[in-house]
Amino acid sequence: MSERSLHPADASVRRPADGPDLHGARSNCHGRSPAGTGATQATLARAGEVTPEMVRVGEREALDPELVRNEVARGRMVIPANPRHTALDPMAIGLRARVKINANIGSSPTTSGTGEELDKLEGSLRWGADTVMDLSTGKRIADTRRAVLAASTVPVGTVPIYQALESASRIEDLTADGLLAVIEQQARDGVDYMTIHAGVRIRHLPLVRDRVTGIVSRGGGVLAKWMIEHARENPLYTAFDDVLEICRAHDVTISLGDGLRPGSIADATDRAQLAELHTLGELTRRCWDAGVQVMVEGPGHIPLDQLEENVRLQQELCGEAPFYTLGPLVTDIAPGYDHITSAIGAAVVGWHGTSMLCYVTPKEHLGLPDADDVKQGLIAYRIAAHAADLARGNAAAHAQDRAISEARFAFDWREQFARSLDPATAQAMHDETLPNDHVKQAEFCSMCGPKYCPMHNVRGVEWDRVQAAAERIGDGERSGAMPG
Amino acid sequence: MSERSLHPADASVRRPADGPDLHGARSNCHGRSPAGTGATQATLARAGEVTPEMVRVGEREALDPELVRNEVARGRMVIPANPRHTALDPMAIGLRARVKINANIGSSPTTSGTGEELDKLEGSLRWGADTVMDLSTGKRIADTRRAVLAASTVPVGTVPIYQALESASRIEDLTADGLLAVIEQQARDGVDYMTIHAGVRIRHLPLVRDRVTGIVSRGGGVLAKWMIEHARENPLYTAFDDVLEICRAHDVTISLGDGLRPGSIADATDRAQLAELHTLGELTRRCWDAGVQVMVEGPGHIPLDQLEENVRLQQELCGEAPFYTLGPLVTDIAPGYDHITSAIGAAVVGWHGTSMLCYVTPKEHLGLPDADDVKQGLIAYRIAAHAADLARGNAAAHAQDRAISEARFAFDWREQFARSLDPATAQAMHDETLPNDHVKQAEFCSMCGPKYCPMHNVRGVEWDRVQAAAERIGDGERSGAMPG
Repeated sequence: MSERSLHPADASVRRPADGPDLHGARSNCHGRSPAGTGATQATLARAGEVTPEMVRVGEREALDPELVRNEVARGRMVIPANPRHTALDPMAIGLRARVKINANIGSSPTTSGTGEELDKLEGSLRWGADTVMDLSTGKRIADTRRAVLAASTVPVGTVPIYQALESASRIEDLTADGLLAVIEQQARDGVDYMTIHAGVRIRHLPLVRDRVTGIVSRGGGVLAKWMIEHARENPLYTAFDDVLEICRAHDVTISLGDGLRPGSIADATDRAQLAELHTLGELTRRCWDAGVQVMVEGPGHIPLDQLEENVRLQQELCGEAPFYTLGPLVTDIAPGYDHITSAIGAAVVGWHGTSMLCYVTPKEHLGLPDADDVKQGLIAYRIAAHAADLARGNAAAHAQDRAISEARFAFDWREQFARSLDPATAQAMHDETLPNDHVKQAEFCSMCGPKYCPMHNVRGVEWDRVQAAAERIGDGERSGAMPG
Repeated sequence: MSERSLHPADASVRRPADGPDLHGARSNCHGRSPAGTGATQATLARAGEVTPEMVRVGEREALDPELVRNEVARGRMVIPANPRHTALDPMAIGLRARVKINANIGSSPTTSGTGEELDKLEGSLRWGADTVMDLSTGKRIADTRRAVLAASTVPVGTVPIYQALESASRIEDLTADGLLAVIEQQARDGVDYMTIHAGVRIRHLPLVRDRVTGIVSRGGGVLAKWMIEHARENPLYTAFDDVLEICRAHDVTISLGDGLRPGSIADATDRAQLAELHTLGELTRRCWDAGVQVMVEGPGHIPLDQLEENVRLQQELCGEAPFYTLGPLVTDIAPGYDHITSAIGAAVVGWHGTSMLCYVTPKEHLGLPDADDVKQGLIAYRIAAHAADLARGNAAAHAQDRAISEARFAFDWREQFARSLDPATAQAMHDETLPNDHVKQAEFCSMCGPKYCPMHNVRGVEWDRVQAAAERIGDGERSGAMPG
């Protein structure tokens, strides 16, 4: 990776003209559903109403809005669109949509502030995040969130327990009322979706005792400690009806957190993970009964051979509610490169039916990501999501690959750069060895040089003559007189 | 990617103590088979002889040498070990061995010289290449190759047609005799394996006419142009018996090149690719009949959903001869990041039965890789190969993941760094936000900070008490009195 790729400001992202407008500017003609009606995209869809948000999703995904409505009604697609998040350009997450990627941003108590987080938001939008989660912890949570919501054209997700914990000095002091108050405040601020770790039940906790890495979800760990200290059930589980009431009132999409996700290959697909997944299936149905949109979070660390089974189990147990996975990482041995270990898992689960991929940056397991880590994570995940779209047979994705490959074969270097995920980096790498303008149409690059370039060597062929020669030769020429 | 990760010299690679010695120093006690006997590992294996090379492979792979002998006799494993390559520490490629990775090095006519290539070799060995291919083109081919062979402890592969083309001023002037002379010279120099594009028959060429990216293999393109100009069959096909005679005499392993591999998603698994694969199956059997070791090269650019089928077809048509793939890239849209697009494909084909993965660097499609590109490509491919080994159930691979995860859970940061693929980069990323020595045992990092670290929060738990509370609560506590 060369120095110049470190600065996203040097790069501009141009979208291919022939794909649907997944990341483009918000069209002017669409409206938004009003706030305060107590309706959600799900209840409206079931009532047969095609909302402005569904129309916009249809436009962006090249889908019939009636199909979008049907998928939302069925719970197989969500449109996280809190009416109070006015900067939002609505998008959808689900099996029939293209695979989406989420970027986590947010300050931590030891590092970073609101300004840095807004920079990360800008970078996230530039590099193609479909949603962002503001995972801020520490003292500035509410301010950072409001600034992010005001600036974000993509859905913003949060984990409310982080803010609840800031006002409680110790985990043990958390209360259900305190949690509900934070959820309500964030809903009123316009948060589009929230991770609710209601599936971590006290009965599941003893299942982690023999794990290599115990609990690795921040929210899951906080709730586990609370349950252990109080010897009581998870307050988000016991108060789940109250959570549903708030989310219904503000059309907040619930993202059911997987607090017991495995944190290592050794713990993958174990009893603790599967026990929680069963509870998540139960909670999914409670969301649907309450008219609340819902998706389900997933692991984590899973080896390649267990990925398809993990998607199948979630889809089966949660009635095809959208699956939203963190990676998964397919090995534990590469801290510093976990955007790669996890992009491998993300591509494969995306192909098998995961609807949104939560990115992992190179800093995972090591520290809080900075702006360049955000970029590296997003590029790796755009690759993963796109590879999954291709494997799912998405026509627009195939058109993108064909267009860049046609430019490559035509030696149209500028067009090849422009159609790539990161044009400035692609051009910089090319120019490192062949910087001159006149080689931008050259029929070779510094990899092979002019004499060996295969795309150059086989051009303008009279194929009929070759075909005739092949037929003449048949199986005959096995050895013997060679020219020269 | 931070600046300090650009310098491999800053990093040291420590191998886990509990894995087999795949990359370690050559043991002192093993010998090598003598040169000039006309025997190969394959003919010796079939005669029931366990060679010193098979013993060493058994040691490195934790396999019974008799099993190694049997696999080599069966043709399902190769030990590329030219007796004249005296610096070699023998290794094996095959279904029963761990998945291997190859690094391509070599100068091009526009860039680089022998000194730079020796630096790339050193970097390749440091970052875990199991073999290297010297793909030099231009004027210094023989000198560079001899320098690489003298310094390399891993098998060295070449593509002889590149050197043959240097003495012919035009592709059309290539002759079968010229090609055979180069193969013989390289065999006498000690080259362990050679890519021979004998499978590109003239009858296959018309199948590429409607492709998006035509022919993208350098060797394939050269031979195609020769065949088109002369209206004759591929000289490496017609003279294949002579090639076999040389390779048998020097125990050079043949790597059957896939000159018609697809260069874009649009061309994947097409008729041209499959027609050549059938010919490669025929040539594999001719190698075996001649007592020559053989592996088979594969694509290229293949979408995720066609990967497993590609491996299955090669294994079936080529009688389980080791499969050696380039990537494959699972999308075309990310030049500058093709180490990632291809590591995704490499991990998946490795799991399904590919035995060696040829790395792709970030510079692929853009220019000749430099030393840092070699490092980035190798790290991505060590991740892919390791993920494949995990998925294949390799016990030593699982032990590596468990060990680093145990260090992670114990907050033993130094041990976690030491057991990672790139310790210096992992430590540098950690130290970016928490540089002080006293946090090397801290029970948190800057990602979560101390209050939210889940691994910290759930420690020293009295599990029996939790279990009792869970049983008391049962399904009862759905709502109602919460503490506080």
